[in-house]
Order: sequence, then structure tokens, then C-alpha cells
Amino acid sequence: MERADKGLAFMLQYENVAWYDAGEVRILDRRVYPGKIEFVTCKTHQEVTQAITDMVTQSAGPYTAAAMGMALAAYECRNMTAAEQVAYLEKASYTISHARPTTVQRMKLITEGCLVAAKQAILEGKDVSQAIVDHTVESNNTRYNKIEKMAKYLVDMFPNNGAVMTQCFGETIVGQMLKIARQQGKNIRLFCPETRPYFQGARLTATVGHDMGFDVTVITDNMPAFVMQKEKIDVFTSAADAICLDGYVVNKVGTFQIAIVAKYMGVPYFVSGAPDKGHPTVDTIHIEMRDPDFVLQAMGVRTACQGVKGYYPSFDITPPHLVSGVVTDAGIFSPYDLHRYFASGNEGEYTQKDLCV
Amino acid sequence: MERADKGLAFMLQYENVAWYDAGEVRILDRRVYPGKIEFVTCKTHQEVTQAITDMVTQSAGPYTAAAMGMALAAYECRNMTAAEQVAYLEKASYTISHARPTTVQRMKLITEGCLVAAKQAILEGKDVSQAIVDHTVESNNTRYNKIEKMAKYLVDMFPNNGAVMTQCFGETIVGQMLKIARQQGKNIRLFCPETRPYFQGARLTATVGHDMGFDVTVITDNMPAFVMQKEKIDVFTSAADAICLDGYVVNKVGTFQIAIVAKYMGVPYFVSGAPDKGHPTVDTIHIEMRDPDFVLQAMGVRTACQGVKGYYPSFDITPPHLVSGVVTDAGIFSPYDLHRYFASGNEGEYTQKDLCV
Repeated sequence: MERADKGLAFMLQYENVAWYDAGEVRILDRRVYPGKIEFVTCKTHQEVTQAITDMVTQSAGPYTAAAMGMALAAYECRNMTAAEQVAYLEKASYTISHARPTTVQRMKLITEGCLVAAKQAILEGKDVSQAIVDHTVESNNTRYNKIEKMAKYLVDMFPNNGAVMTQCFGETIVGQMLKIARQQGKNIRLFCPETRPYFQGARLTATVGHDMGFDVTVITDNMPAFVMQKEKIDVFTSAADAICLDGYVVNKVGTFQIAIVAKYMGVPYFVSGAPDKGHPTVDTIHIEMRDPDFVLQAMGVRTACQGVKGYYPSFDITPPHLVSGVVTDAGIFSPYDLHRYFASGNEGEYTQKDLCV
Repeated sequence: MERADKGLAFMLQYENVAWYDAGEVRILDRRVYPGKIEFVTCKTHQEVTQAITDMVTQSAGPYTAAAMGMALAAYECRNMTAAEQVAYLEKASYTISHARPTTVQRMKLITEGCLVAAKQAILEGKDVSQAIVDHTVESNNTRYNKIEKMAKYLVDMFPNNGAVMTQCFGETIVGQMLKIARQQGKNIRLFCPETRPYFQGARLTATVGHDMGFDVTVITDNMPAFVMQKEKIDVFTSAADAICLDGYVVNKVGTFQIAIVAKYMGVPYFVSGAPDKGHPTVDTIHIEMRDPDFVLQAMGVRTACQGVKGYYPSFDITPPHLVSGVVTDAGIFSPYDLHRYFASGNEGEYTQKDLCV
């Protein structure tokens, strides 16, 4: 496999890091990646739930893991009556969707979608686990296609031989962005802030970029201003955990700060994603505060002395006046004009108060 | 000892982390502090030089270590003739001052000051090592007094029950600032960005603040914008590696970025230190690029995959329009008006092209 294709394949495999096969679900352990490539093997849907709770997989990973947990639940109850199977799967849907308190609503969209596919398969006498897997592949493909469209609009904004700064791990959009950049012959340099405290920029984004053959530089989170100025960054870009309809962008903590710096430097900030009907205004956003102690260590090694407090907001909020454009599958919109996205029948997202982690 | 005094004592001891006594120099190993309290014991001035090169001590620590290395060199040559001692100490001065390529000029000011004290002691038939130690105590005390004056001006800018954001480790100014705040009954909360890649904020500043009994919160370097807004930070303050006479501030990478964010938020940024005659304009500043691989690890654990590049500028440069005031021992000056500092006979700094690390 060519190196660049290895990168893209990795990135897709990486989203599909939880996969059901023959009565078990294997989940890539992102907690140790890329230092080690290890998988957690789950024999029951409860084990899948626990793995999601334990942050074995992150970002979009839990949603595929949840679907695969449903496929595994269908395998567990395969010898029951139709009515028993439905009851079993409804209970599994509840269990899995509650793996993390902050993602219940979005998880339910996934597990209840699987439930619909399962009922149909039961009525048609088909393999229920396979039906859930097929449904997941289909819905992932729909998403990949949307994201590929976004990536094209985004890469159009890059100059050739440009320098692009990222933030955190933009999941599928990062891989698609790099694939399109290569197709367009745009030889961009990537600068990835490491994204403390979890190092998603250093561990995930940088790996995808490097595997796809791009020039990748990791910087610490206090360097974006220096790097934008010195290395002449052309574009700052990120994905989003939610894009509110009033143009406020919710994303991994640090995005707001880099957007302020980008504005100061005259560097445009493009966010990729779909406007989120579940968040008509920024007032619907609740920033979860996570375990503060996690900030007092790095890669498992304690940094501060005992008695010092930590502080760990999961996300921050970037106001629309710092956003140069919202890059969607239907084109680039002003953050002040997101309602127009829905005018031509586009669906957008619907995450209610949940935000993925 | 009271907890608060322990903090200040620690901070002073901390500057005097390298101390000469009875034919050896003991240096607190800041590379492992505060996780472990360990000392490196040096039996020769060459070992002291090596310890400085190896970053056993940092920030202002190397300057005291260099002086103590001179005291040790004086001990090594104590049985030689006067002329031989002078030659030996001149050679030691050269060796020690060249421990790090970026601090030669500033180091020479220290070691050559010791040489003057040593020659005087030789002529007077006094204990040369002791004379160097006495000289160092005296010159440190002069500095502490200056910094105490700065701290008073700085703390005057803090509201009571205010929130203060720091950057990196401001060495003596941090301890003096907290001592004065307590004397004035100002119960400030400290927010310390961890300051990657070396974690001086998490490891050093936070420890001093906590030991002195203040409420200290460590944040990652991507959180200052969120924290300034959410926690209503009143003042951002830092020390400086150099304050150029045209008002540009050279300090640990990240300062520039926080200053941009502070300006955006309407939070004043006060830098403490003396204007530096060695840097009449910012054009004299050379930003050293350090070992890029150091950015690809955290607390000794690798973060990024092989093949990804790192990037490690030692400092960044904050322009005067982002600086609300330069807090000196002679009062607070506009960054555009630093020449006035010298008008009433103040000396300032003189570091030429070197910057301490």
C-alpha cells in the first residue's frame, strides 16, 4: 500500500476503530495510540459500554463503537423470540447510549437507528447483527461523502505550498482534507498544536498527516502566535463539536484562543461541519468541566505538586466575529448566515445539549 | 516555620539552589523538581559547568551556580601562588561562562564580578572562596531589594480578591509579589499556565504560590482565553528575559499569545523587570531555536509518532502596544517611554545579545 493511501486507510479504519465480527467487538485503544497499536476486545455489549466510558475510543469513535455494541447485543440474543430480541435490544440501546453522561442524546440517535434496522431484519428473518453492521456502513458512507464535499470547499481556501494550522483532531475531515489537497496537487505544510491535556494534535492529527506524506510539525499550545507570525500560516482550521445557528463555534479548548490570535495576525479561521439545529443559539451550550486532576499530569506523569488545583473545561466557544467561514457540504457560509444552509434542503446536525468528547 | 514563610524561604533557597560549602557545590535538580527534591553535588568547577550545561538548574539559577563554581575553583587553587590563582580563576571564569552558548555574555558579568572579588581577597590574604560567596550574597541582596520594590509597584495594580494569570516562572519576582500581596492583605487567586514544553508554570510557579498559602490553579497552555473570560482574570503578569528599550518584551514562548488574548479581553499585561541597555531595539534580539525533539515528548514520554517534526523557539517577542506597563524598581513606565527609567540614575540591565534560559 502506498504511504499516502496507508494514511487515508488508517484514518478511515481509525474512525471504524470499533468493529463487530463473529461475536466480538474490537476497539483500537486510542489511549495509548500511536505509541502502541493495541485493541480492546469486548465479548458483550456491556463491555463495549464500559470501553466507551473508559475513553478507549474518542472523538467520533464512540458512535461507531455504540453501533457495533448493538450488533454484538443482537448476536447475544440471536436465539430468543422476536419479541424477546426487541426487548433485549431496547435495553442494550439504553445501556450503550448512557455510556457517557455528556453524549446520551447523540448516542441515542445512533443506537435507536440500529434498533430500527434490527427490527426490520427480525421481520425479514435476516441476520440481525449483519443488518446493523450494514446500516452502520451505509450511514458512515453518507457521512464520508458529506465530509468529502466539505473538504473540497475547505482545500479551495488553501494556497499551494501553504501552511495550515490545525487544532485537536478533526477526525474524518482531516483525512479527507489531506486527500483532496493531494488530488489538487497542493503541497501544504501542517502545523499541529499538541492539544493538551490529551495530546490529540500530537498523537492523532500529526500521525494522519505524516502517514499521508505531508510535512507535519507539532508545536506546543503556547506557540501558535509565534508560529503564525514566523512561519507565515495561511489558514487556521478546525472541526467543531457544535456549530450553533447563531455562528458560535464549540470545539476543543484552545480553539477560541487560536482564533483570537488568528484575527490579530490577519489569518482566516475556517471551521468545518454542519450547522446544528439542536443549538439554535449559544445559550444552549453547557461547557462540561472534567476531572481537574487530569490537567496536573502529562502522558501519565504528574507535573504539579500536591495541593495545587487543576482546571479542565472540555470545550471553549468561539464567537462568530472570529470565524471567517463555516465550511459545510453545501458550500462556505458566513457564520452570521447559517439559516441559509437549510434553505436548499440540507439537514445539518442535531445534537441537542450533548457534545461529543 | 509557617507555611507562607516556607514558600518564600523555598523561593529564595530556590534561587540559591547552587551553594558552595566546604569544597563542594550542591545544586537543586530542577529537572525533577517538585516530583523529587534531589541535589547534584559537584566536586570541581568543571562539574558545576557541566551541571549548568545539562540544565540541572534553570532561569536565574545558573547565575548563582556560576558564582558558586567560581568559589569552588578558588578552593581548588587555594595552595597555589597568587599569580597562579589568578590564572586558574581566569580560566575557570572562561569555562563556566561558556556553559551554555546563549548565556555567555550574562554569565561573564557574573564570573568576572567574582574574579574582581577574588583578586581583592588574594591581595588582602583573605579566604578567596568565602570572599566570592560574600560577594554573591551581597549582589543577590541588591537584586532582591530591587525586586521587592518592583513587587510593591506590581501588587498595587492588583485588586483585592483578584485573579492573576502568570506565565512560566518569574523567579524571585513571583515570591516577592506574593509576599507583598500578603503584607497588603490582598488575597489573590493565581492561575498558572503550565508552560510547555518544560512545565515551569506547573512545576515551579504553582509550587511557590501554593507553599505561600495562595489559591493556585494550573491550566494547560490552550486555556488562557477561556480562563480569562470565565474566571474574570484581572491582571496578566510575567517577568522577562529582556525588555528592549523600544518596549518589546522577550520572554518564554507563549507570553506573546497570552498578551494578544489579554488585549482582546481588556485585561492589562504588566511585565516586571529592568529595561535592558544591551537591547536598544528589538532588532538586537535573536530567538534561539532549541532541540525540536524536546517538543515531541512530555515529562519524558514521547507524544508524536516518528517522522513528525518538532519546533522549539526558546522565546517570543511581545510588541509594546500589547504591554500595559513595565514594572521596574523605580516605578511603572509606559513601554514607549523606557529611556526615562535611566534619567534618575537607575542602571537597568545589560545582557547584550544573550538571553537567560
